[in-house]
Amino acid sequence: MISFESDYIAGAHPKVLARLMETNMESLGGYGTDKYCESAREKIKAACDCPQADVHFLVGGTQTNAIVISSVLESYEGVIAARTGHVSLHEAGAIEYTGHKVLEVEQQDGKIDAKALNDYLDVFYADENREHMVFPGMVYISHPTEYGTLYNKKELEEIADVCHRFDISLYLDGARLGYGLMSRETDVTLADIARLCDVFYIGGTKVGALCGEAVVFTKGNTPKHFMTMVKQRGGLLAKGRVLGVQFDTLFTDDLYFEISRYAIDMAERLKKMLREKGYRFYLESPTNQQFVIVENGQLAKLKEQVAVSFWEAYDENHTVIRLATSWSTTEEDMEKLEEVL
Amino acid sequence: MISFESDYIAGAHPKVLARLMETNMESLGGYGTDKYCESAREKIKAACDCPQADVHFLVGGTQTNAIVISSVLESYEGVIAARTGHVSLHEAGAIEYTGHKVLEVEQQDGKIDAKALNDYLDVFYADENREHMVFPGMVYISHPTEYGTLYNKKELEEIADVCHRFDISLYLDGARLGYGLMSRETDVTLADIARLCDVFYIGGTKVGALCGEAVVFTKGNTPKHFMTMVKQRGGLLAKGRVLGVQFDTLFTDDLYFEISRYAIDMAERLKKMLREKGYRFYLESPTNQQFVIVENGQLAKLKEQVAVSFWEAYDENHTVIRLATSWSTTEEDMEKLEEVL
Amino acid sequence: MISFESDYIAGAHPKVLARLMETNMESLGGYGTDKYCESAREKIKAACDCPQADVHFLVGGTQTNAIVISSVLESYEGVIAARTGHVSLHEAGAIEYTGHKVLEVEQQDGKIDAKALNDYLDVFYADENREHMVFPGMVYISHPTEYGTLYNKKELEEIADVCHRFDISLYLDGARLGYGLMSRETDVTLADIARLCDVFYIGGTKVGALCGEAVVFTKGNTPKHFMTMVKQRGGLLAKGRVLGVQFDTLFTDDLYFEISRYAIDMAERLKKMLREKGYRFYLESPTNQQFVIVENGQLAKLKEQVAVSFWEAYDENHTVIRLATSWSTTEEDMEKLEEVL
Amino acid sequence: MISFESDYIAGAHPKVLARLMETNMESLGGYGTDKYCESAREKIKAACDCPQADVHFLVGGTQTNAIVISSVLESYEGVIAARTGHVSLHEAGAIEYTGHKVLEVEQQDGKIDAKALNDYLDVFYADENREHMVFPGMVYISHPTEYGTLYNKKELEEIADVCHRFDISLYLDGARLGYGLMSRETDVTLADIARLCDVFYIGGTKVGALCGEAVVFTKGNTPKHFMTMVKQRGGLLAKGRVLGVQFDTLFTDDLYFEISRYAIDMAERLKKMLREKGYRFYLESPTNQQFVIVENGQLAKLKEQVAVSFWEAYDENHTVIRLATSWSTTEEDMEKLEEVL
Repeated sequence: MISFESDYIAGAHPKVLARLMETNMESLGGYGTDKYCESAREKIKAACDCPQADVHFLVGGTQTNAIVISSVLESYEGVIAARTGHVSLHEAGAIEYTGHKVLEVEQQDGKIDAKALNDYLDVFYADENREHMVFPGMVYISHPTEYGTLYNKKELEEIADVCHRFDISLYLDGARLGYGLMSRETDVTLADIARLCDVFYIGGTKVGALCGEAVVFTKGNTPKHFMTMVKQRGGLLAKGRVLGVQFDTLFTDDLYFEISRYAIDMAERLKKMLREKGYRFYLESPTNQQFVIVENGQLAKLKEQVAVSFWEAYDENHTVIRLATSWSTTEEDMEKLEEVL
Repeated sequence: MISFESDYIAGAHPKVLARLMETNMESLGGYGTDKYCESAREKIKAACDCPQADVHFLVGGTQTNAIVISSVLESYEGVIAARTGHVSLHEAGAIEYTGHKVLEVEQQDGKIDAKALNDYLDVFYADENREHMVFPGMVYISHPTEYGTLYNKKELEEIADVCHRFDISLYLDGARLGYGLMSRETDVTLADIARLCDVFYIGGTKVGALCGEAVVFTKGNTPKHFMTMVKQRGGLLAKGRVLGVQFDTLFTDDLYFEISRYAIDMAERLKKMLREKGYRFYLESPTNQQFVIVENGQLAKLKEQVAVSFWEAYDENHTVIRLATSWSTTEEDMEKLEEVL
Repeated sequence: MISFESDYIAGAHPKVLARLMETNMESLGGYGTDKYCESAREKIKAACDCPQADVHFLVGGTQTNAIVISSVLESYEGVIAARTGHVSLHEAGAIEYTGHKVLEVEQQDGKIDAKALNDYLDVFYADENREHMVFPGMVYISHPTEYGTLYNKKELEEIADVCHRFDISLYLDGARLGYGLMSRETDVTLADIARLCDVFYIGGTKVGALCGEAVVFTKGNTPKHFMTMVKQRGGLLAKGRVLGVQFDTLFTDDLYFEISRYAIDMAERLKKMLREKGYRFYLESPTNQQFVIVENGQLAKLKEQVAVSFWEAYDENHTVIRLATSWSTTEEDMEKLEEVL
Repeated sequence: MISFESDYIAGAHPKVLARLMETNMESLGGYGTDKYCESAREKIKAACDCPQADVHFLVGGTQTNAIVISSVLESYEGVIAARTGHVSLHEAGAIEYTGHKVLEVEQQDGKIDAKALNDYLDVFYADENREHMVFPGMVYISHPTEYGTLYNKKELEEIADVCHRFDISLYLDGARLGYGLMSRETDVTLADIARLCDVFYIGGTKVGALCGEAVVFTKGNTPKHFMTMVKQRGGLLAKGRVLGVQFDTLFTDDLYFEISRYAIDMAERLKKMLREKGYRFYLESPTNQQFVIVENGQLAKLKEQVAVSFWEAYDENHTVIRLATSWSTTEEDMEKLEEVL
């Protein structure tokens, strides 16, 4: 049985685990005050070409979204997101649990559009009843999106422009950021993201870490007493080192980028293989997640040999499934998959 | 200056106010324990033909929606509502403030459709990732809707059937219930609503009261310690009598229904008048709210003599406005409006 | 049966009700935009000798406390209150429901002490673990307290000094403010309160209104989009006029103060009466609430003829009860009570 | 520099880390569905002698407390805890953030007393105003407490009896449970805890794991859709294996108990050493945390060579400090400490 079920089927990249082992018996302070957290922060700031950035380490993606959004928004504000956004659909209402509405807007292949965003905000500010409505206080985008798609630099700039015009924050969920940055079809760099977003996170869980996400506030805009709010929302790890050591390793010698590029290479092979075998793509994804439409009988057989993800029912007889590569995908996996297909 | 701005431009129906005055100096217990609350409850249960109902009085509509929804739902559940529903759009995020997502579904003229609802629930329960999603725990409908439209009995029954099939509550927001029940085009009675809904409220604020809404739990399903939750959410009035006396009066000698019918009569005249004057209707409403599309220059002039409600921009040059009648609309208002139009 | 159970056993002062009737059929805008709200705001600002004040009308006390506290505090902050404070003990957790901790401090007869408050804050800021604790962001006091006691001007000034030193807000719950201001033993004026507090409310429900409390922000410190937060928390009344007319009447010709003084006169008679009859006071109260310790058998008999409030069990055989006067207490009530006692 | 600052200064026990490495490249399902989670659950159930238990793995202590408490309580309920309890004092208001009050009761050396608890509940249920108050829905105790103290079996049984009598849940925070179970002075076993508590957690973070706590519902009382609530509150780890492998290792061959016993041995040596050196104990602790009162000048010097924890100011010239041993304390640390003292 081989697995293309997700990009979190393996543990950590071996170098990450080795470093955890090497540093294991050192006595370190808790809650992110240790030297590895400090070093990781500096390396991330350098990688972002953003010396004024402020970096915090959290444990998982939903937690990060809920903490960032709820600590940045005022209580009368909500966050704009694609109807298919992770915060809208697949976080069990974590944002609403903190008291904030997710203001869902239309999307195309997981992406929102600067023009549609601008229209939404224009309509809101023209509405005479807006004092009875949730104020849009932030825009949430994921990059890559939940469908593996990417914004290009111009699209990001346009979205950032709209946000600035309406004085709201732009937040980018980078759960799979490495795979986006290393896509062969992107013109967006980490520095671009740091320049254009007010806050974003660099995903660790899906890109080589056991767990952990690095939140980057880019404009001196870290909410006051952020650490206390992280504690209050259950996100403060006693052994902050666990996150610090992992991110320090991932941002040493470009490991984060290298393993992401490897996953993209595997994804390109996967795409080619699926195309050659006649699979029908649900959409065109330039990153590590590939979505194909499979007839249900065929799917049942496939699942006997390959673990894949259910995405959504396509119609009565077909299902959209996801196959994901990652840093941990092996040559052997690829070969076995080719046989199975 | 005459006003068709809303159905809450006047105080209370004179009989309601007179009764408040008559009972004013009586010493009564607080928090809804007085004899007028008791009497009002009995009359409402009789009017609903629902002896097992449990009736509670709250102050306003948004408060009622937030309290009912948050006290009925489990914390992992959300409420399904039309994208145009009051809870979705015009309550400043009051439902999300209590921690629950409003699961927005498509609508037509403010109404949701049993078939679409059923499909939504089917898709949810077929989704293998549903444990990562907000569970639908309730369906919210408004009747009349925010667009003045009504469900017919068959539509209500079908929606109720879907709710039963999926074991979720059906909640009806009756902020303008009187105007719905007295519409010339309805086949739905108060007893039907009590039979089909798990919980609903009978609007007072917009139908003759100074303030106040009567929540009716119809199936022995009042949440445990409901009064404490009302207190906790800031909705418990010390002088519960204020609400009790008002509803007791409204449900004596069918006052609630009579004044609602009067408002419908005025609305029918209004519709006729608007049609004769060539106004373009935004949609067909059988109740006290009428929506017309007006050219912006014309609107500016109209507003010099008549107060109306901005509803939404129709296009660059036109606006959807609302004109509402109510129990307080006078002959004189109608005549003056005719002149102005 | 006569009632000294509370100060909210009657409806509204007759002048208030008369004014509601006189203005009943006027067409007015909703949500506090009407001329009576405007006029009431101006009169209250004048009475407070605080032209820069910003006045908002809410419906009830618990609602007011929850909305003011949750809209002023940052999410990492809590509110300091006496362990016996209304927000600590008798609001069903309404403050915690908004996500904020009530930081309970010791009290004496319902009052907190500037010295103890200062010590609490000193200890907090000396604590090296304070980033793991709830930050004190506000001090809540009630005046009169839940035990009818009052702060004198010097005590209030000292508390305000501590708040300024630590840069936290001082909030005064004036549910019974009239009875405090008209006490024979107070040196505190409404202008003092406006000068010393950052925000406070003038209670209407217990001092002549059907319902309603007037929140006064005194230092240009109204939270941004306060109205939207009021709506979000279920406190926005569609017919804002109901509150505006009532407060406009109460602050015309000093009605609020006159009816409060009357209640104090009745309370002084009550105290004298209780003292002469040999009743044992639980504490010395200079306002309209009087607390006496009664043997349980005697209480059972008393309750056959007089409604009083249970306060707390004193010991196995005795109970602390409360008798309250108000603007609605009559000569006849007093005479009957004298007979019964 | 040596550190006795806390029991979370090192990484994971070497066996735990080794096992993470051995299993690292296996393809496993996410969110706690993997075989290591399954195996760990079975071993924990066996160790608890509680076959009907339901075990869930969460990441950290504050998160665990907030999730367990908020998912078990009804919205009108609060949790009773010692004023010094972790949930009361050192979780930045995490419980209140979920909308629930911590009902603080008096304590002695961190412990609450069955008699005091019973009195509290008796008074609550005798209070005629209890519908306006927060209902006690759970009792929270920590074992060992924040002061290192322990309940004996009789005390636990008495507290459990009170809880049963009032039909409320008993929840035990076992962040340092291993150190409590291996104390030389305890008569309480893990099976006793599983028998007496409705829910408790076995701390991993402070007892050999990188992170992680194992929640045990003992009576078929897991809240419905608990996993969804964990996700909603940001506590669901994508790579559940990280927790599963760690707990599976800790509960293999009694590792959890052995390393706890070792820490207790070190603590006993520490106590002896401190006593011999004339240190003044703040209280008597039979577990791995020791509290001594140190003169401030002496403390400054001590801190140059040993990391210790600030606990609280004792008086102007003295501070209470904590020294903690753990599984990671070495012989060398002990010897160096002896020299320094």
